[in-house]
Amino acid sequence: MALNFITAEEAAMFVNHDDNVGFSGFTPAGCPKVVSQAIAERAIREHEAGRPFQIGMFTGASTGDRLDGALARANAIKFRTPYQSNKDLRELLNSRNTHYFDMHLSLLPQELRYGFLGKVDVAIVEAADVTEDGEIVPTAAVGILPTICRMADRIIVELNDKHPKEIRGIHDIAEPKDPPCREAIAIYEVSDRVGLPYVKVDPKKIVGVVRTSEPNDDGGFAPLDDVTKSIGENVAKFLVQEMKAGRIPAEFLPVQSGVGNVANAVLGAMGDNPEIPKFQVYTEVIQDAVIGLMKKGKVTFASGCSLSISREVIQDLYANLSFFKDKLLLRPQEYSNHPEVIRRLGLITINTALEADIFGNINSTHVLGTKMMNGIGGSGDFTRSGYISIFTTPSTAKNGNISAFVPMVSHMDHSEHSVKIIISEYGIADLRGKSPIQRAECIIENCVHPDYRENLREYLALGVKGQTPQHLGACFEYHKQFAETGSMKNVDWSKFKK
Amino acid sequence: MALNFITAEEAAMFVNHDDNVGFSGFTPAGCPKVVSQAIAERAIREHEAGRPFQIGMFTGASTGDRLDGALARANAIKFRTPYQSNKDLRELLNSRNTHYFDMHLSLLPQELRYGFLGKVDVAIVEAADVTEDGEIVPTAAVGILPTICRMADRIIVELNDKHPKEIRGIHDIAEPKDPPCREAIAIYEVSDRVGLPYVKVDPKKIVGVVRTSEPNDDGGFAPLDDVTKSIGENVAKFLVQEMKAGRIPAEFLPVQSGVGNVANAVLGAMGDNPEIPKFQVYTEVIQDAVIGLMKKGKVTFASGCSLSISREVIQDLYANLSFFKDKLLLRPQEYSNHPEVIRRLGLITINTALEADIFGNINSTHVLGTKMMNGIGGSGDFTRSGYISIFTTPSTAKNGNISAFVPMVSHMDHSEHSVKIIISEYGIADLRGKSPIQRAECIIENCVHPDYRENLREYLALGVKGQTPQHLGACFEYHKQFAETGSMKNVDWSKFKK
Repeated sequence: MALNFITAEEAAMFVNHDDNVGFSGFTPAGCPKVVSQAIAERAIREHEAGRPFQIGMFTGASTGDRLDGALARANAIKFRTPYQSNKDLRELLNSRNTHYFDMHLSLLPQELRYGFLGKVDVAIVEAADVTEDGEIVPTAAVGILPTICRMADRIIVELNDKHPKEIRGIHDIAEPKDPPCREAIAIYEVSDRVGLPYVKVDPKKIVGVVRTSEPNDDGGFAPLDDVTKSIGENVAKFLVQEMKAGRIPAEFLPVQSGVGNVANAVLGAMGDNPEIPKFQVYTEVIQDAVIGLMKKGKVTFASGCSLSISREVIQDLYANLSFFKDKLLLRPQEYSNHPEVIRRLGLITINTALEADIFGNINSTHVLGTKMMNGIGGSGDFTRSGYISIFTTPSTAKNGNISAFVPMVSHMDHSEHSVKIIISEYGIADLRGKSPIQRAECIIENCVHPDYRENLREYLALGVKGQTPQHLGACFEYHKQFAETGSMKNVDWSKFKK
Repeated sequence: MALNFITAEEAAMFVNHDDNVGFSGFTPAGCPKVVSQAIAERAIREHEAGRPFQIGMFTGASTGDRLDGALARANAIKFRTPYQSNKDLRELLNSRNTHYFDMHLSLLPQELRYGFLGKVDVAIVEAADVTEDGEIVPTAAVGILPTICRMADRIIVELNDKHPKEIRGIHDIAEPKDPPCREAIAIYEVSDRVGLPYVKVDPKKIVGVVRTSEPNDDGGFAPLDDVTKSIGENVAKFLVQEMKAGRIPAEFLPVQSGVGNVANAVLGAMGDNPEIPKFQVYTEVIQDAVIGLMKKGKVTFASGCSLSISREVIQDLYANLSFFKDKLLLRPQEYSNHPEVIRRLGLITINTALEADIFGNINSTHVLGTKMMNGIGGSGDFTRSGYISIFTTPSTAKNGNISAFVPMVSHMDHSEHSVKIIISEYGIADLRGKSPIQRAECIIENCVHPDYRENLREYLALGVKGQTPQHLGACFEYHKQFAETGSMKNVDWSKFKK
């Protein structure tokens, strides 16, 4: 069956008001770019003509501005899940002009299949190759691609020639069976393959193919500063310490590392530390630092869901595919983030906290408890099931006026039960086997910025009784004072003293 | 090698000050009873003589009063993990006279093996049988028995003749390998066996065997009232609804059900509902209701970690072992609660909330945010990995003066990301695919007691902006007013209005 090559505008006509649309990709990598913009333009025209036009959106995680940004600006989003990081979309959902539900990323594909989230009308996927018999080779990320392609009535392919067809083989595409027939997820080593190098779809569902030549958005990270460098060094120091104590095996364990500057700093410090052996990466997002360590031979294999790397690094990778192809695998997020595999492989998980409290709870999502930043992403998948779960954070933000460590997190995403280690630029809080009061003392002495230590000691000394001496009347004073004065410093606890 | 039969007092001399001691059992079932009391008496004598005597305690979960209660009253506990429910121990830890760390139950065995929690000096285990070559047959529960027996330097066996030797075969005892060598947990059906019917230990480590004839503590539950009955019926109604919609397969899925009256009511209602087919149970604690449904043929198989059933029911079970033996399996908690198995089997998980908030977060552990009730237990293991996770709670407590639904939980154990369904006696809140504001409206209209609905609507209407309209200055007013007046009713929000 011949492929039907069409324009982005023609493709957008296959998407109707009220449709649920699934998109390929994960971070800007692998996401559609031109059809999404054409849908946004169509929405604007429909709105101008007085007709409603909004779609439900399932994605892998965050996407590019040409997807989330364009559709948000066109007010074309009925609901959105499971993760986002786009400025305009963030504004839309925080003004509650769209409904956003923030999900554990490993859960989305199965909850789609279980029918918990409604149907998928259309799948729009970026591909490096597509054949007449329905083989779709993804580009730099996979996300929820296999599930939306199987579930959708109609598939639109963006065939993007910025990604060479020769990347066929870098993907491992599968979908688990559902209960009560589910088998083991057969990944026992980071490099184990369990699927095909392409997504196989019914070719009759491919309603159109749109040729593009659009590069991924180029995120880029701020250069490392002293704080992020120190955090990275503290993580490396902790891991070496654990190896020496026999609590991490001598052959080491695979590493999961979150996204962003701190994650890059952590991987950099691990790479530079001669006491850390060569290691493997089993993660969600493969960043530039992983590719760099691979070239140095320090990382021997990386499995992920997304190659979220800069344009420069991806050009290098494509130019040297023969070097990288047997060292990299891109999987659907249901596999990259699967708790069964994470627990079995024994991942060392390293994620970033937005805010932590002195009892070891983590806020990953909400600024001051109300405003959604991005979402929980895969941090819950990895933290809850890892061999040892580490959270990192700079001790302060906004020139020291925000302490990352507060009496009570203003929103909780990861509970004390799942958080084992917290690391700031000041040091390492090892929370294992500690009661709440012991955790609080450990975090204050090791991680908190010196400007806040005495103040948090005073909070603990307010005389609240119980296993967790949390003062419900005073626990948000840091947030309250920040909203009023712009600083969390030197909160006066005297009015709460008994 | 002949077994060394000794008295409980002699056995207690094998336990030294500062030792870490692991105990068999889970709930009062399967726990040691006489050696623990002898250790408590020894501690009292040592303290009277001016010498320190405190031990670190690892258990499966809660235990009996002759263990936790006796050692707490003797002030003989250095630290305690992972779960408890004893009045005197609760007082000890809430006065911070011992250190309690509250853990996901599936994690304890592996964190012991990983070396995260120190060594295990002594294992004290109740057995129905013990052989000279080191085969130990547990009694009515397993808990962490295999791990503590393998890790301990010394093993003390309480050989309890209240449990017939013929129960050999009802247990399935195994320990997984650790990363990087871990294999799949090979349970694909509720009834799959992966281990031996006994724990095999080095017989040289068995320093003594103490004969006992002590029955388990008889917990007993309050009779069902209208509220618990309605909750049970709402759960059954929800499950039928999901089957009819095709979101639960026609062959149904295995059920996990928490501990207590509500859990008994839920199982009772499921048993009585003709639209719910015969089903299997894969759970932590097997209660009376499961045995009753098994006799009726409604439950066809039950796998658990503990037979926490009344004395009457256990006598019936032992008298009819041939009927029950091929329908029951008792496993270590690392298997009964293993996230890999829970996600694979697709469990319908039903747990009880201590407190919920209108955004879908659950407090399972802390009264008014400070006082530990029991612990998180297995609720995190099951909730996070189940096919669909349900929390149940009566809408009010203390004659209506406490609302189970508050603006913000005073302590969080399960986040919005993992909680799918909340059910009270008033109805069902289906939170799947809903944004925070939609969840709040859904919970208020369906689950909240009518006395609190309008007041919580007013809270939502305070005008807080953002994805989650949580007012950090007002979110604990229910708790504050309850502490001051004894009631959460009719909180006055006017001072928070903008």
